[in-house]
Amino acid sequence: MPEGDRQAGRFVVLEGIDGCGKTTQLQRLMAWLPGSGLLAPGGQVVLTREPGGTPLGQALRQLLLHPPQGAAPLSTAELLLYAADRTQHVEQVIRPALAAGHWVLSDRFSGSTAAYQGHGRGLDLALIAQLEVIATAGLQPDLTLWLDLPVADSLRRRGGRVPDRIEAGGRPFLERVASGFATLAQQRGWVAIDAAADPQQVAEACQAALLGLAR
Amino acid sequence: MPEGDRQAGRFVVLEGIDGCGKTTQLQRLMAWLPGSGLLAPGGQVVLTREPGGTPLGQALRQLLLHPPQGAAPLSTAELLLYAADRTQHVEQVIRPALAAGHWVLSDRFSGSTAAYQGHGRGLDLALIAQLEVIATAGLQPDLTLWLDLPVADSLRRRGGRVPDRIEAGGRPFLERVASGFATLAQQRGWVAIDAAADPQQVAEACQAALLGLAR
Repeated sequence: MPEGDRQAGRFVVLEGIDGCGKTTQLQRLMAWLPGSGLLAPGGQVVLTREPGGTPLGQALRQLLLHPPQGAAPLSTAELLLYAADRTQHVEQVIRPALAAGHWVLSDRFSGSTAAYQGHGRGLDLALIAQLEVIATAGLQPDLTLWLDLPVADSLRRRGGRVPDRIEAGGRPFLERVASGFATLAQQRGWVAIDAAADPQQVAEACQAALLGLAR
Repeated sequence: MPEGDRQAGRFVVLEGIDGCGKTTQLQRLMAWLPGSGLLAPGGQVVLTREPGGTPLGQALRQLLLHPPQGAAPLSTAELLLYAADRTQHVEQVIRPALAAGHWVLSDRFSGSTAAYQGHGRGLDLALIAQLEVIATAGLQPDLTLWLDLPVADSLRRRGGRVPDRIEAGGRPFLERVASGFATLAQQRGWVAIDAAADPQQVAEACQAALLGLAR
């Protein structure tokens, strides 16, 4: 990395189906990054997520995942609410952090909307793409790590936990989401990581990908 | 109106700045329509509003007009939330009512977003138009009544009532909104009604416009 570029923050996203280990790996990256040599002097690590990375987003997350009786958003409304969450997140959290030279680690970003709502639920991919442009205003992750886990492993790891409104789509839905993530990874140049491996191996693969950003 | 068309519902919108008398006139239309001869046999009148015409919309109305501390939507998020409210309203309330042959009276629709967010706050008119297409999926009112009230009258009628987040933009903002409504009325072929007149005169002008739909 050229010296001048050392000041720049980086935007890293973790994507994958429920149970793929995003939370665990994000915690490990948070612990590892400060000693990695990747941060600029004074640079921090900002851990965030979608939906719900802002105060507005937290209210929207509730409406999306646990809506009150009768208030479940229909398909286009759902896409618009994810887009509203995303634009607030980009403007209020991600862009300011990057401008300050920090690294941003996000649990999901626009890839999840394409995977869950597009490939999983069959909503209009062109509309999803149009709303992604509006919501991100062109901001793209510097790196997306796709934690690739077989659906059977996801279901086993989830065990008896009650699914939220999106997760409750059943196994055929989850299969379409997983296959959507695979398609997106290829289309968008994501780094695929075998999430069925030992967590320590997964962590090392994630770290290697982040170190690759510095080359 | 041809006999076959008598079964068709009609979508009527009232637009105008705060204090223009929409609420009063909607109540009067609700009382007048059943005896007007306009409704099909079994046809009903559905009174609704934006934002907040659905259970989801009521939650969004709260976020838009009275957001919790720190959760006020930034400009693009605000437009996306209005669009989410509108698409849910169109799909869950307006289209089903029209399909059943009812008349729908709505307190505000997409014209208000163009007037308040576009002309008033200066947000991107092209983005507003793009989101209007997404949210309405092409549904347009059969008739929009614009209750045209001078800003000075609006402020006087409002008196000491505490304004919501949108109304709190001050007089120059309200002047831009009022002028935006005038522009939109011309562009979109709305029926302009002098809202400074006596309420009974305003009601008669509204009724005449609705009767015009039957010709």
